[in-house]
Amino acid sequence: MSDSLDDLRIRLSAFAQARNWGRFHSPKNLTAALAGEAGELVSVLQWREPTDALLERDRARLEDEMADVLIYLVRLADVCGTDLVEIANQKVDRNESRFPA
Amino acid sequence: MSDSLDDLRIRLSAFAQARNWGRFHSPKNLTAALAGEAGELVSVLQWREPTDALLERDRARLEDEMADVLIYLVRLADVCGTDLVEIANQKVDRNESRFPA
Amino acid sequence: MSDSLDDLRIRLSAFAQARNWGRFHSPKNLTAALAGEAGELVSVLQWREPTDALLERDRARLEDEMADVLIYLVRLADVCGTDLVEIANQKVDRNESRFPA
Amino acid sequence: MSDSLDDLRIRLSAFAQARNWGRFHSPKNLTAALAGEAGELVSVLQWREPTDALLERDRARLEDEMADVLIYLVRLADVCGTDLVEIANQKVDRNESRFPA
Repeated sequence: MSDSLDDLRIRLSAFAQARNWGRFHSPKNLTAALAGEAGELVSVLQWREPTDALLERDRARLEDEMADVLIYLVRLADVCGTDLVEIANQKVDRNESRFPA
Repeated sequence: MSDSLDDLRIRLSAFAQARNWGRFHSPKNLTAALAGEAGELVSVLQWREPTDALLERDRARLEDEMADVLIYLVRLADVCGTDLVEIANQKVDRNESRFPA
Repeated sequence: MSDSLDDLRIRLSAFAQARNWGRFHSPKNLTAALAGEAGELVSVLQWREPTDALLERDRARLEDEMADVLIYLVRLADVCGTDLVEIANQKVDRNESRFPA
Repeated sequence: MSDSLDDLRIRLSAFAQARNWGRFHSPKNLTAALAGEAGELVSVLQWREPTDALLERDRARLEDEMADVLIYLVRLADVCGTDLVEIANQKVDRNESRFPA
């Protein structure tokens, strides 16, 4: 995993440990938390047209929710012992075969 | 953004461009796609107890969905001009103030 | 559709029409709105154990989100011309074949 | 609750009981299952424009997912002892105050 995403992983692990929150961070609970943030993310633009220019207030809300999604995704991968960037690249490898340019 | 997450961002952008898929990748559409993958992710463990050990077949499905979530998240951040790791670190900064250890 | 669910459908249609919100209520937008509420619903119990007794404050939040999910689901079915209870019963018919008791 | 939605509730309860699935149907697990189906629902139209006419194959997929969302919502309300249509109507009452026509 990249250094700075790995730095984030280490930071989030220490954050959870310092608050004794590790006991809540089972894979199941983290998938629920991530789905909750993904729900907030999709709600930001629910009444917008795809062709609408992005409003500044929408961008700020999107970024807040994107941050939360990444945080729970990095925690989930960490407790599963998964290298996120590696599995994403493997998926893109498969997608390149499935969907030739 | 970290080098290797940035490599993934560049790879995904080229992948979309080579297939003329950029026209589908509006922020709104990408939030819907991400929410769809988050739904698949949360469904993997829906009937499991949080205390259950992770089955290998569940882990494989989780990793497949984690990869998809990261792919759409990186695409969404890219089309919004957002640095994912930076906004996540800013969010953790705020969380450290909100939730003292 | 049942009379009282049908009453709700008619009420929601009139509510949207009185506010000129029908133009926002495309199937695509309503699926995004429903996914947003489903995200809020799943977040209510994200740190709870499945075996935990339901806290009163959690029940109140669940009911608030259940109401929102039903509202968007009834609107979505209405704009699609779908009879919700009928399609659910057809699905249960199929599930009874797929999963014999 | 309306007769036919109540018929569906009773049917689903019997279906779960006949398969000894009630033990899986905690509120937490049902919210995860519902979020999973909502994710599938939002993914159906993820690359469509809101103004696109609904394709028949999309309608069939939407209806399949709408059925699943209703099924889990009715089960969740049942295990929580909640009258779905009543709480939805109470929410519309509040929305009528919040958003005057």
